[in-house]
Amino acid sequence: MENGGSAAAKWRFTGNERLTLAGAVTVRGVLNTIKGNLDGNDTRPVIPLGQGDPSDFPSFRTSSFAEDAVSAAVRSAKFNGYSSTVGIPAARSAVAEHLSKDLPYKLSPDDVFLTIGCTQALEAIVTVLARPGANLLLPSPGFPYYEARTGFSGLEVRHFDLIPEQDWEVDLASVEALADENTVAMVIINPGNPCGNVFKYEHLKKVAETARKLGILVISDEVYDHLTFGSHPFVPMGVFASITPVITLGSISKRWIVPGWRLGWIVTNDPDGILTKQGIVDSIKGFLNISPDPATFMQGAVPQILENTPPDFFQKIVSTLKETAAICYERSKEIPCITCPSKPEGSMFVMMKLNLSLLEGIKDDLDFCCKLAKEESVIVLPGFAVGRKNWLRVTFAIEPSSLDDGFLRIKAFCQRHAKKP
Amino acid sequence: MENGGSAAAKWRFTGNERLTLAGAVTVRGVLNTIKGNLDGNDTRPVIPLGQGDPSDFPSFRTSSFAEDAVSAAVRSAKFNGYSSTVGIPAARSAVAEHLSKDLPYKLSPDDVFLTIGCTQALEAIVTVLARPGANLLLPSPGFPYYEARTGFSGLEVRHFDLIPEQDWEVDLASVEALADENTVAMVIINPGNPCGNVFKYEHLKKVAETARKLGILVISDEVYDHLTFGSHPFVPMGVFASITPVITLGSISKRWIVPGWRLGWIVTNDPDGILTKQGIVDSIKGFLNISPDPATFMQGAVPQILENTPPDFFQKIVSTLKETAAICYERSKEIPCITCPSKPEGSMFVMMKLNLSLLEGIKDDLDFCCKLAKEESVIVLPGFAVGRKNWLRVTFAIEPSSLDDGFLRIKAFCQRHAKKP
Repeated sequence: MENGGSAAAKWRFTGNERLTLAGAVTVRGVLNTIKGNLDGNDTRPVIPLGQGDPSDFPSFRTSSFAEDAVSAAVRSAKFNGYSSTVGIPAARSAVAEHLSKDLPYKLSPDDVFLTIGCTQALEAIVTVLARPGANLLLPSPGFPYYEARTGFSGLEVRHFDLIPEQDWEVDLASVEALADENTVAMVIINPGNPCGNVFKYEHLKKVAETARKLGILVISDEVYDHLTFGSHPFVPMGVFASITPVITLGSISKRWIVPGWRLGWIVTNDPDGILTKQGIVDSIKGFLNISPDPATFMQGAVPQILENTPPDFFQKIVSTLKETAAICYERSKEIPCITCPSKPEGSMFVMMKLNLSLLEGIKDDLDFCCKLAKEESVIVLPGFAVGRKNWLRVTFAIEPSSLDDGFLRIKAFCQRHAKKP
Repeated sequence: MENGGSAAAKWRFTGNERLTLAGAVTVRGVLNTIKGNLDGNDTRPVIPLGQGDPSDFPSFRTSSFAEDAVSAAVRSAKFNGYSSTVGIPAARSAVAEHLSKDLPYKLSPDDVFLTIGCTQALEAIVTVLARPGANLLLPSPGFPYYEARTGFSGLEVRHFDLIPEQDWEVDLASVEALADENTVAMVIINPGNPCGNVFKYEHLKKVAETARKLGILVISDEVYDHLTFGSHPFVPMGVFASITPVITLGSISKRWIVPGWRLGWIVTNDPDGILTKQGIVDSIKGFLNISPDPATFMQGAVPQILENTPPDFFQKIVSTLKETAAICYERSKEIPCITCPSKPEGSMFVMMKLNLSLLEGIKDDLDFCCKLAKEESVIVLPGFAVGRKNWLRVTFAIEPSSLDDGFLRIKAFCQRHAKKP
């Protein structure tokens, strides 16, 4: 070993514990733990009902128009250089136009900031709002990435409830009870992950009014926008931006089934210029100045992706999700220890309650999922990972036949572990 | 305006001032200020000698093999989903093998973490090392993104000098004087941005020995790896990893001339397992768990890009840079108020000293660059942006004919502003 100098008294660098802790509960991390229980001797295919990523399944293959757009952008050699940190103008315009279709006003391209998926959009707004002593209101059940990023940013996390008996609507009374003068914003995810709900117009209006009363902004995670198949259409929160400022987070990941392409946006819905006055817009730009950008050619492909994807592509995806959501809901009724409080109407997930008193030898939701993986090679996410212990989050974004198979196996598992009378 | 509830007493959210401040001095920001002085009536083409991004120029078009690799990865539909947060295995292996060619030992794929360009690799290691009261040693002159990210992370920045008279070698005495028990690491950029130097083997060994003596690790930014054309070959800092642990930052951005593709890596060179023991590796994984990932198909294209690009592509790029570096150096000798202390041997930049006493009506480096933009439509980066006031950072990664033209205009400008005898 080369050793030209005296040995160091000690090494002065150490890892950042906050980082190690922040990422402790993530969907991927928990699923990895569960997958660790899979039985290598089981020759049946693994049925993955844990993650919202159906990109591998034939029914969910993305549009060839989208692939063409990316390929053309790469080969054009026009997008090999650095982009502007806020995003290239053509992409900002295209996203503004795309989102404005569903709003009562026109977004400006300056309202749109391109990000590396919805993930970075979330990171941006949390970092922008962070200040010592402030708190952020997150939904429970929710999406653990919010907790991880919020915690790391120094903001305090406070959870408000979604009410299962009311189609997972926001418990607005709990929001008002939680908020104080240090509350900066509340997050909603619509269509809902993990609950599969779609908020009604009237309810979203009440959310906006509550936020206004509290002096906070609404962060609306709309990454599942337009993935709805029930009686309630998707209503973007930006519709209510004149009541309270709205920050919209979105991406192409879910609607185009390309979470690996990493192209999203953070959008300021702010007809009254409040976000600018409060320094939010400058902060977003400051964040983007010191953060990585999405690949320039991905941005270059955005106009074509948003404008040229034929409607029948989306119709097919939504139709498949409608079918699999129904399979999920109907099959759960055949399993006594599992209750699905409301039929999913959107997104790719549904929450199901576990009745452990009807089972034997199953300690909790994590134990259920680990044993299910081991005995039946089915992966489901335990509810503690999304804030509801002893519930399950089930993905229905999968081939209908695989979902059928998955539920047969879950049913067999539950029968095998049913408490003897 | 819809207003269903009582008006808010006040808005409780504000922007994060630290973000707005952190990004205050960036290369792009300063160049935007300078470009604001361009004269729209000047019909001559703007000569951009300010930024290290030659992707627009024909002599610097990336390899069609690289474009093919990305296009094929997108069309394969195999890379549309989420990747593992540390990177897909095939990409980690390919980078490990690629880098191991220049090392006296073999890197494991587990030593390699894929990032969104070198930008995110930098963000990762700074965030990992941050703890209250700690400090990071950065080179001066340097790359302002380090100052921005380090400042935002809460680490204190301390600058050590690079010595112009010694081919910009590290002033190791100043490193030792600056370091204390709270110093965690030192950063070197090799080949050098902004100085265009290439550190010698013996010098890098002394850097490693100094770091070991101080108990700190070396962060080696090798984004310009193998872009050398002088008498000194590129030596990766990882060669000295048995003296002190080394974190290597790299990407395909510069060598393949694709900074917009956003694919890089952070690599642990640590044969003695010190980085693991000190919690650095777990922290890196923790960071990646709560941060966005590079596009999965970019990762998918990495093996092909690294393994299949024909050598003559690199030879051509290096040969062009050798030619333009020489133009830069020779032409600077013809301009009395500009001194180039050493001939550039690598990267895409060179530092030139301004002798303001030979000029009239030019206040400082920023003033020089703003007036140069206005009068001659040439963009050069003022040295204050990289830590050396009244110097200039000049890019030579440009078509030789444009660089010629640029220097003719700089010479004319300097003559016009020369102090009368």
